[in-house]
Amino acid sequence: MGELTRLVREFSTERDWQQFHDPKSVILALVGEVGELAELFQWVPAEQAVAQFSDPARQARAAEEMADVLVYLVCLADVLGVDLGEAARAKLAASHVRFAADQVRGVAPHKP
Amino acid sequence: MGELTRLVREFSTERDWQQFHDPKSVILALVGEVGELAELFQWVPAEQAVAQFSDPARQARAAEEMADVLVYLVCLADVLGVDLGEAARAKLAASHVRFAADQVRGVAPHKP
Amino acid sequence: MGELTRLVREFSTERDWQQFHDPKSVILALVGEVGELAELFQWVPAEQAVAQFSDPARQARAAEEMADVLVYLVCLADVLGVDLGEAARAKLAASHVRFAADQVRGVAPHKP
Amino acid sequence: MGELTRLVREFSTERDWQQFHDPKSVILALVGEVGELAELFQWVPAEQAVAQFSDPARQARAAEEMADVLVYLVCLADVLGVDLGEAARAKLAASHVRFAADQVRGVAPHKP
Repeated sequence: MGELTRLVREFSTERDWQQFHDPKSVILALVGEVGELAELFQWVPAEQAVAQFSDPARQARAAEEMADVLVYLVCLADVLGVDLGEAARAKLAASHVRFAADQVRGVAPHKP
Repeated sequence: MGELTRLVREFSTERDWQQFHDPKSVILALVGEVGELAELFQWVPAEQAVAQFSDPARQARAAEEMADVLVYLVCLADVLGVDLGEAARAKLAASHVRFAADQVRGVAPHKP
Repeated sequence: MGELTRLVREFSTERDWQQFHDPKSVILALVGEVGELAELFQWVPAEQAVAQFSDPARQARAAEEMADVLVYLVCLADVLGVDLGEAARAKLAASHVRFAADQVRGVAPHKP
Repeated sequence: MGELTRLVREFSTERDWQQFHDPKSVILALVGEVGELAELFQWVPAEQAVAQFSDPARQARAAEEMADVLVYLVCLADVLGVDLGEAARAKLAASHVRFAADQVRGVAPHKP
């Protein structure tokens, strides 16, 4: 994650694009990429999605959109001074406590 | 990224939650977390966002939502057999070519 | 749609909230509501979604999130001076031409 | 809204596309259109957005993406049996109570 942060920052700096990277703008860019990811899957039957995207060309397209999402997420973390890897580890640790395996096994958490 | 993938997979396996993680469902979960991230920033004036989120409590809230986005992105990559770190490096390399620094310096790419 | 626009504008004006409603902020708010809508459906098996949401309480929850999405969309249209109903009719008319029924019947358009 | 619902349903029926319109798929399509809307605005400085989008060509582009969002929202409402106009009016009425004008005037509601 550290190396990726360095690469993303370098890319923006070389182009003098940090001036555009206020948090709200980067989140909108992230939303744009999530939208492109969603469009790849929208009409694929749910139970065929994994199989259809095992095709190398479609897997590569999905990988590309996922990469775009990650790049903007890393960019946002850099702008906000957030250690993304550490945040993810901390969140998973908290989720281990919040969703005790014995109590939620096989049951999807239900949004009220 | 490899370690994070392992942690996310372990978390799902312990709870027998992989059954819910078809790609479309995971993308909807990702959208949910992006929505929560967006809500933190929606009414903050653009030019105050970095300063307001340098407050430790608000930074921690943003970090938490970003962590959620990353966790679902890692989960999706795992389900689709995508190497997310490699995909991001490849995309950045392609972007270096596509957006030659000399030609785009200081100019935001314009969506038609 | 005209009445709804009037209600949304009145609601904002009474609270002096138009000052927050620059387009990017309203889009982020819209994203937040789309995220809440997505969360309601994320772990529901695709083929059970209609049945599960025929339950009045869950239908009402979905309706509420959809209402929030619509309200922010109407708000954005008002800020940008867009006639949303007219835009939707024009887009549907263009889609009738772009997707000739005879050629696309039963085939989901495929994003490249 | 009733007329729009009729037009959207007719469009889908003529193409035999209702088979693709399970709720999760339609929400992903909605997310895709919200993403395209976000991309139009992402790098525009917040305080210039209204002015830049008063240009007829850019306003028309924004209107088109907003129309797409509305069409999928109407489609989702139709699939779920939700009266979208009524839901929006009910939500606004509830918001009038929840956010008493005297108490929130000029203050953006803060997400915790």
